[in-house]
Amino acid sequence: MKKNTFSIIAPSLLALIIYSCQFSGNTSGNTETETADITYLESWNDGEARSKIEDFIRGTASERNSNFVPEKDRVAVFDNDGTLWGEQPMYYQLLYAVDFIKKNAADHPEWSSSEAIQAVLNDDLSGALAGGHQAIFELVMVSHAGMSEDEFAQSVKTWLETTRHPDTGKAYNEMIYQPMLELLEFLRANGYKTFIVSGGGIDFIRVWAEEAYDIPPYQVVGSSLKAKYEEKDGEKQVIKIPELNFIDDKEGKPVAIHQHLGIRPTIAVGNSDGDYQMLEYTTNSTGPRLGILIHHTDSEREYAYDSLSAIGNLKMGLNNGPGLGWVIVDMAEDWKSIYPD
Amino acid sequence: MKKNTFSIIAPSLLALIIYSCQFSGNTSGNTETETADITYLESWNDGEARSKIEDFIRGTASERNSNFVPEKDRVAVFDNDGTLWGEQPMYYQLLYAVDFIKKNAADHPEWSSSEAIQAVLNDDLSGALAGGHQAIFELVMVSHAGMSEDEFAQSVKTWLETTRHPDTGKAYNEMIYQPMLELLEFLRANGYKTFIVSGGGIDFIRVWAEEAYDIPPYQVVGSSLKAKYEEKDGEKQVIKIPELNFIDDKEGKPVAIHQHLGIRPTIAVGNSDGDYQMLEYTTNSTGPRLGILIHHTDSEREYAYDSLSAIGNLKMGLNNGPGLGWVIVDMAEDWKSIYPD
Repeated sequence: MKKNTFSIIAPSLLALIIYSCQFSGNTSGNTETETADITYLESWNDGEARSKIEDFIRGTASERNSNFVPEKDRVAVFDNDGTLWGEQPMYYQLLYAVDFIKKNAADHPEWSSSEAIQAVLNDDLSGALAGGHQAIFELVMVSHAGMSEDEFAQSVKTWLETTRHPDTGKAYNEMIYQPMLELLEFLRANGYKTFIVSGGGIDFIRVWAEEAYDIPPYQVVGSSLKAKYEEKDGEKQVIKIPELNFIDDKEGKPVAIHQHLGIRPTIAVGNSDGDYQMLEYTTNSTGPRLGILIHHTDSEREYAYDSLSAIGNLKMGLNNGPGLGWVIVDMAEDWKSIYPD
Repeated sequence: MKKNTFSIIAPSLLALIIYSCQFSGNTSGNTETETADITYLESWNDGEARSKIEDFIRGTASERNSNFVPEKDRVAVFDNDGTLWGEQPMYYQLLYAVDFIKKNAADHPEWSSSEAIQAVLNDDLSGALAGGHQAIFELVMVSHAGMSEDEFAQSVKTWLETTRHPDTGKAYNEMIYQPMLELLEFLRANGYKTFIVSGGGIDFIRVWAEEAYDIPPYQVVGSSLKAKYEEKDGEKQVIKIPELNFIDDKEGKPVAIHQHLGIRPTIAVGNSDGDYQMLEYTTNSTGPRLGILIHHTDSEREYAYDSLSAIGNLKMGLNNGPGLGWVIVDMAEDWKSIYPD
């Protein structure tokens, strides 16, 4: 019985899949608070989503507002895949892993014992993913393990510079969502610290997130492998080892926020049911809180998918979110543009 | 054979021991970069240590200097116990754990099966610690596990308000080192982000570090228990479970820096051999780097201890540090004062 390729890729281990990109248009140094009189959220259409988001953020930053939140507590967390950048037709980090395996197979005769890797080498991605979680974990792990921080970063950077998205032909670093860049900027202008809390791999995202989103590596949380400290090439380094450390997905997201941030966020933004617990944890508490879900409704300019998609599956959030006061952003309706010019 | 109480407390699990304090004199909001013309490092005597530290920091922040470091890479990591505040005659977090156990024993009949806990209840701390790592781990764990974030924070705050240091009679939140508060401030004034990377418990430190050091919870890294996401008292919360997650000591510190910060620091500051690998990792790389060790030499105003002490043991650092270019700070010589007024 042949299974659909994507249905095999369960969110919790896709968790480990992570990516990279370089976008230089939005950054303005490390300043977290800006006060210049500039226009924010330009790529957002007027409507309920925009006004709810804008009003909430301005309210939390205004001492006279009943929603005021002290600046030290103004923390916003963002999922990455499908929230800050694309995730179709496949999580980009998995594509990176596949390319890495093809490029390096000659140096790794030991890979011949892995069915998943052999399938990748035979251009049979469906076959590779038929092994489920274990197969995906294997593919992603071999694209990390044994490398120093610098080696891994260089490998990801080179991949980003040389590959293009299969549908749009754009570089992956051009496939960030312009309205989300503006939301990040608007939050920082209102005294928020912005964090990524992604199911994707923490190291993969850190390689490019600062240039793409103006989010420094220490404000990126994600799934991770274990690591050890040892000498390599005459230098003491931290090296990833092929053993799972943490899956930052579903109920793992609140735990990761607790362990890495140590503060319950004021705002959480996601796009799939993998983000449900993060939004729930954020909003199910006292004080002003906001949950935002990006709903992929735009088959013309991007992709339209939700409850039937294995990638970015969104069902529980659509059903329960509105009742919980979460803002559902309709990409087709609420966004003037998708990608940066 | 009776062993010395403190020699049993090996650094790697004392790792888990953590404390608290509240000091409100040094904070100046969340601004990481200040440019006002104020005097820094006032409590530091003129001398080689001060001038090396000051010159290095100013150099890294000056574009015309050969040591210039871009602001995004200006990261400084600090050990906590013995570096930012005291650690004698015993890690303060262990004292918190002991007090917690005494206060809550009546509600925990299951503790009767623990020899370490029973010894604590009989005021026999030596006996309690005779069980080595396992005993210490047990004492610290019962003072965390099962509590929500808010419950734990409240417990630590109350303890801080009601207990006093056995030797000085000061509140623990008055036993922060004034010269280190000034160093933190000077670093931030030069565009550095300041992090704690402590063997102590991450949650324990986060309760009070923002008020004490102006370091927010997401810039605190430490040893940790595992946690789970679940409903408690009608609210979804993250609850600590009695299972070790990570020991942030010795070779664990570079790994924790990699996992939490994702960037090799420019400056690392410690006081014991538990910090050796953190300083080594920081300085054993290209680019301008600085390692600093605080040497406790002041038996009059504080304590004098190094290679023979089980708490804050410092031997390898004193032997190798100077040859590696690390600055050794002599507390008696280099500091005008120890605690804030």
